[in-house]
Amino acid sequence: MTFFYNNVYINETATIVGPYESNGPLNKLFDKCNKEFYFKEKTWELAEIKLIEEAVNLLLNKNNCSYADLLISGDLLNQIVASNYAARNIKIPFIGIYSACATSVLGLILGSNMINSNQIKTVIAAASSHNNAAEKQFRYPVEYGGPKPLTTTFTCTGSAAAYLSTVKKGIKIESGTIGKVIDLGIKDAYQMGAVMAPAAADTIYQHLKDTKRKIDYYDLVLTGDLGLYGKEILKEYLNKQYKINLKNYDDCGTLIYDINKQPVYSGASGPACAPLVTYSYIFDLMKKNKLKKVLLVATGALLSTTMVNSKNTIPSIAHAISLEAI
Amino acid sequence: MTFFYNNVYINETATIVGPYESNGPLNKLFDKCNKEFYFKEKTWELAEIKLIEEAVNLLLNKNNCSYADLLISGDLLNQIVASNYAARNIKIPFIGIYSACATSVLGLILGSNMINSNQIKTVIAAASSHNNAAEKQFRYPVEYGGPKPLTTTFTCTGSAAAYLSTVKKGIKIESGTIGKVIDLGIKDAYQMGAVMAPAAADTIYQHLKDTKRKIDYYDLVLTGDLGLYGKEILKEYLNKQYKINLKNYDDCGTLIYDINKQPVYSGASGPACAPLVTYSYIFDLMKKNKLKKVLLVATGALLSTTMVNSKNTIPSIAHAISLEAI
Repeated sequence: MTFFYNNVYINETATIVGPYESNGPLNKLFDKCNKEFYFKEKTWELAEIKLIEEAVNLLLNKNNCSYADLLISGDLLNQIVASNYAARNIKIPFIGIYSACATSVLGLILGSNMINSNQIKTVIAAASSHNNAAEKQFRYPVEYGGPKPLTTTFTCTGSAAAYLSTVKKGIKIESGTIGKVIDLGIKDAYQMGAVMAPAAADTIYQHLKDTKRKIDYYDLVLTGDLGLYGKEILKEYLNKQYKINLKNYDDCGTLIYDINKQPVYSGASGPACAPLVTYSYIFDLMKKNKLKKVLLVATGALLSTTMVNSKNTIPSIAHAISLEAI
Repeated sequence: MTFFYNNVYINETATIVGPYESNGPLNKLFDKCNKEFYFKEKTWELAEIKLIEEAVNLLLNKNNCSYADLLISGDLLNQIVASNYAARNIKIPFIGIYSACATSVLGLILGSNMINSNQIKTVIAAASSHNNAAEKQFRYPVEYGGPKPLTTTFTCTGSAAAYLSTVKKGIKIESGTIGKVIDLGIKDAYQMGAVMAPAAADTIYQHLKDTKRKIDYYDLVLTGDLGLYGKEILKEYLNKQYKINLKNYDDCGTLIYDINKQPVYSGASGPACAPLVTYSYIFDLMKKNKLKKVLLVATGALLSTTMVNSKNTIPSIAHAISLEAI
């Protein structure tokens, strides 16, 4: 299901990160780097709420972004409370979405659909994740210090928000593809790359089919957060199943940290991962004309602790948007 | 934020309910009534997944509904796993949303926006809830038998799905209003009616303002699931804060059960509540021309156990759609 847009642009973005991202290779490109996890709040959840509020406020203080018609946001916390609680202070109409680590792109697609059809003028699409809040909820409190397999991804801490309108400024959203839920039968929540790679492949295939493009049309295909191992799985799977040969390809999960030096297992994950990397490093390259056309494929593992602990397999989804330098 | 639609219709609906709803006053109007809670599955979560799958399959077997471009769905379970897991078997592009008990109307609005702008032809908007799954997750397992205050709402068990297209058949969706998150400072999760009434009031006020209508324009204003006490709070609050006098008014939470006879406290709640009542009882009255114009205002309390247990106040939201008999 691919939507085409004539006149939707990401005019501005706001990116806020936590300590690990602040120590990573992209730190100079984020709007705000924090050195600790609490952000002066009492709980991890309140800290994540603050991340979204601050990202949206940062955005609304940028040039010509003082007002938005609508906020679309989601996160990993149960009942997406980071987004819900942030929205009560932002005080504009709100749509809560859940697509795990594919949330940011789903928000951009929903917003683009409404803007492209003149239903609204401006929208903010946001997403967040917080390592300690997510680890506590999905695995163990980080204070427990449990070891994990190397295939584990490390939930990044941060929030990213994008300001969309028809004003020709920033980066163009040319089209967007809503994915299908895919489940190839993996039950291991420490193998998220393997869980999500088939969803990424399905969405890439569908996007190319709907747009009648070859993969070389894009200067870069960028997945959300497959991590070191998921990247290789995707390349092999796309080749075998769909005869698509990924060449100009990278994964946000492997870009935000220095994987060789930082203790982040196979790389970053979390709804904030894809937009943090895209709005900083990738948009910087696009604005310098080093990249012209980018396909961003955000991937989400649609598990819950209840479903994993009762030994169910893990479904996944991927949504894609085609981004163009203007 | 109100959207207007020229040509969006709910052509068909499918409704499946559990034992309490099967014993309620609307039982003859549901497509399928189940006498037990497990639906031949091993866990409450798997039972809720099955509810959505069955509702969607029922819908796709109705006249001229054999295919849909998109599924939009949400539920109360952590990470909306009922919807996510159902979507993997439905195998069409999927948008996961979370707006607690306002989910159904949010889905109808998102679908209507896309259909009205010719971005897609057909969409299924679904929502579900399961009493035992929700009680286990949000309060205590029902087997524990803990007593609750009379202001408690009783999560209904069921799933409701609607088939939307531009074909002039069924019920017209004339407009939709996306609400803002409201938090007046209540911390008591057994007072959902009080938590949600201000959000319902804000959305009703905004809808009337955007559409330049008086409340009497509607033959019926129908809130999602405020329950016995929330209904009274809404009437008083709307009158005091906005000088709006609700006359032709009812609440889905007080309609699906016989509150005087069934052990359901102050009435039903859950994402399935509003659409189950609307697609059965209300659509029946509309098709018999006993009601012409209905404003459905679905209300959602945006809490999580983590936020309630750490003593935060509870935000809420309401989304509204204007329904017309054709």
